[in-house]
Amino acid sequence: MTRPAVLIMQRMLAPLSPFLETQFDVYRLWEGPPVEAANDIRAIVTAGEEPLDKPLIEKLPNLELVACFTAGYDGLDVEWCRARGLKLSHSPNVNHEDVADLAMGLVLAARREMVAGHLKVLSGTWSLEQRNITASLQGQKVGIVGLGAIGAAVAKRAEAFNLEVSWWGPRAKDAPWPHAESLLQLAKDTDILVVACRADETNRGLIDDQVIRAIGPHGILVNVSRGSLVDEDALIAALHSGAIGGAALDVYATEPTPPERWINVPNLVLSPHAGGATTHGVQAMLVLTLQNLAAHFAGQPLLTPISD
Amino acid sequence: MTRPAVLIMQRMLAPLSPFLETQFDVYRLWEGPPVEAANDIRAIVTAGEEPLDKPLIEKLPNLELVACFTAGYDGLDVEWCRARGLKLSHSPNVNHEDVADLAMGLVLAARREMVAGHLKVLSGTWSLEQRNITASLQGQKVGIVGLGAIGAAVAKRAEAFNLEVSWWGPRAKDAPWPHAESLLQLAKDTDILVVACRADETNRGLIDDQVIRAIGPHGILVNVSRGSLVDEDALIAALHSGAIGGAALDVYATEPTPPERWINVPNLVLSPHAGGATTHGVQAMLVLTLQNLAAHFAGQPLLTPISD
Repeated sequence: MTRPAVLIMQRMLAPLSPFLETQFDVYRLWEGPPVEAANDIRAIVTAGEEPLDKPLIEKLPNLELVACFTAGYDGLDVEWCRARGLKLSHSPNVNHEDVADLAMGLVLAARREMVAGHLKVLSGTWSLEQRNITASLQGQKVGIVGLGAIGAAVAKRAEAFNLEVSWWGPRAKDAPWPHAESLLQLAKDTDILVVACRADETNRGLIDDQVIRAIGPHGILVNVSRGSLVDEDALIAALHSGAIGGAALDVYATEPTPPERWINVPNLVLSPHAGGATTHGVQAMLVLTLQNLAAHFAGQPLLTPISD
Repeated sequence: MTRPAVLIMQRMLAPLSPFLETQFDVYRLWEGPPVEAANDIRAIVTAGEEPLDKPLIEKLPNLELVACFTAGYDGLDVEWCRARGLKLSHSPNVNHEDVADLAMGLVLAARREMVAGHLKVLSGTWSLEQRNITASLQGQKVGIVGLGAIGAAVAKRAEAFNLEVSWWGPRAKDAPWPHAESLLQLAKDTDILVVACRADETNRGLIDDQVIRAIGPHGILVNVSRGSLVDEDALIAALHSGAIGGAALDVYATEPTPPERWINVPNLVLSPHAGGATTHGVQAMLVLTLQNLAAHFAGQPLLTPISD
């Protein structure tokens, strides 16, 4: 019996190969276009944030399934895929706790100036006379953009730090925290804005210059969602001018982000898209991806189809 | 009417001067010994972690009050002061939330390798192919050494991150978290050990080589209490050998700690004794110190006397 052929789209997913090889014939796009196997490939495995290569997809006549390894799938044109009869899966709700952990870590690192503190100790510039006094989380308000699994997990953590939580999203939801009337109002009313919503073409640049200025000179912006949501040039200008107090970013307009873009920008904490990148989270995404592939090839419903 | 004379002991407390000057004649030890005012000085204001200068105290015959600006007072010989008839005040329970915030920030920074991540982005060594996968907080256990105001505030935060909390202290307490039978058992049974107890001569070197090794190669040590509690040489050796997975320190055997001691030590997050150093915390300590001084000179009981 021949095994289904599966194509892995990005080199960063190379660690999946040995697991997939136990059940599938595996092709790796970075080793060259799978010209000879074009008729055999029935599923692709892709990182959801990477733009899907439509011309390539059109050369795979027997493709049935696009399996996103990740929870996010902003790189996919869902309607285009559906129009081609492709099934779509992703890995939701397995790493939201890890992402929320990092979000809270970024809040603390930015507010309490932890990276600067670390470098101060190591550089020998720490002196008792010029002790650094930072802002406190105590008495502050956090605004969460997008109250999905990640946003709700951030809210739960924030409350344990005595932060007053409110949120905004385009759709009202039954939630224990107040819903701001607009994103701009949320940015004005809170000290810390955490971006945790799903990214797609409709919310590109959502955190624009006006929202950034509304966060204000004592406020901070934290983004653990997608770089596309933030106007990075406006953010960098606002950090330089002091129009915003600080920022902590796990995601960028392009990844890896060019370091020269950030080197002299003040009051900044950077993280290499590490939100869900834990042994725990990656293992859970791997298991779910394998389960979706297995379900599909057994003729059963996908465990976690993309549902919008 | 002459105003009481007050002596500020350390230069790091210089910012208190203008506030004290509204009510007292203020002397600053770093400007020279207060020889002419020796008979006038009725109170000193001191940082509780700094060893009290006993020979100086003996030259102040009319000293009545030692007011510690801080919550901790490990620099004081309480019995010696009491034997001299001195009253003692400190500033407890005003910055424990801030210290617990930083403790949790250190847990996150160490576990999720946040400082390394920041430097990776800035140095341009971030690549999608060699993505850093860190440990997760999810499924882990935290052990808290000392369940005072800080320890309990850390426990509350840790639970919001789904961490399983237990604790150890020399005295049993009514608490919602299980009490480990010994410190060593706590270190063995948990992934993250947070030191949050009060320091004094009885617990110097409490976190010794044996405890550090019990935390183990996948565990981390976080200290927001006092440097005296940890055998720093043993910790550095264990970090080098991999006998412990990581450490995050806000306090040191000597402060400022010599940077050359830490420069090549792996898996380390450092912070310049910033736990309580927030605008919120410092203001609250200032208010309490002024209130204790005012109460004393009005012949009223101290608001927050040192009570052991």
